[in-house]
Amino acid sequence: MQTDQLSLTFSALADPTRRAILAQLSGGEASVTDLAKPFLKDMSLPAITKHLKVLERAGLITKTKEAQWRPCKLNAEALKDATEWMEQYRIFWEESLDRLDEYLKTVTSQNNKKNKPTKKGKKS
Amino acid sequence: MQTDQLSLTFSALADPTRRAILAQLSGGEASVTDLAKPFLKDMSLPAITKHLKVLERAGLITKTKEAQWRPCKLNAEALKDATEWMEQYRIFWEESLDRLDEYLKTVTSQNNKKNKPTKKGKKS
Repeated sequence: MQTDQLSLTFSALADPTRRAILAQLSGGEASVTDLAKPFLKDMSLPAITKHLKVLERAGLITKTKEAQWRPCKLNAEALKDATEWMEQYRIFWEESLDRLDEYLKTVTSQNNKKNKPTKKGKKS
Repeated sequence: MQTDQLSLTFSALADPTRRAILAQLSGGEASVTDLAKPFLKDMSLPAITKHLKVLERAGLITKTKEAQWRPCKLNAEALKDATEWMEQYRIFWEESLDRLDEYLKTVTSQNNKKNKPTKKGKKS
């Protein structure tokens, strides 16, 4: 079965090392050696290279071909579709927050009516 | 190794069937039987139940406990952190679009200077 692009993107993001590599690349191009450095105490270079391949396959990073050291580069545009997919659900969690807000407003206004404020009782 | 929440979320989203289930649930609560219907021609009920379990484990859906038929419910708040994680990269793809825009403006203005417009030459 061929994997669709959205699944490839989300799957590539489903790993803390790969997300950390993307974060590193958001600071600019880097060589594989530089990218690997922070992870080498926890994993092998082949394991890191494998992570880079997953990111490359998902289109999230590209290897610049011009320079001899072939630096890796973030390709943030590849996150656009995935972000848009997620954004369509924003309305649902914002709705729940709105409902909570509405509820709190009702409760506050009911309380205010109950304990009708006097000028003396007001706090500055 | 314990899987972190962001990885769980992205991993749950990395499948077209699971994304389709979430889309179905964005229309409201549904029973497992109803949710399974559109997929039963391509996969077995246990396969669908497995997908539901992945979504539940990631916190993206919850099974309502009140009703006897235990409907599934979308829990969109679980997408909030993942969306925020992705949003931090928005600046990068928007930057590339801005740079393209800037480049096009420069090219246009250079062309305009080169072919200094005469009233005659102007196109309406």
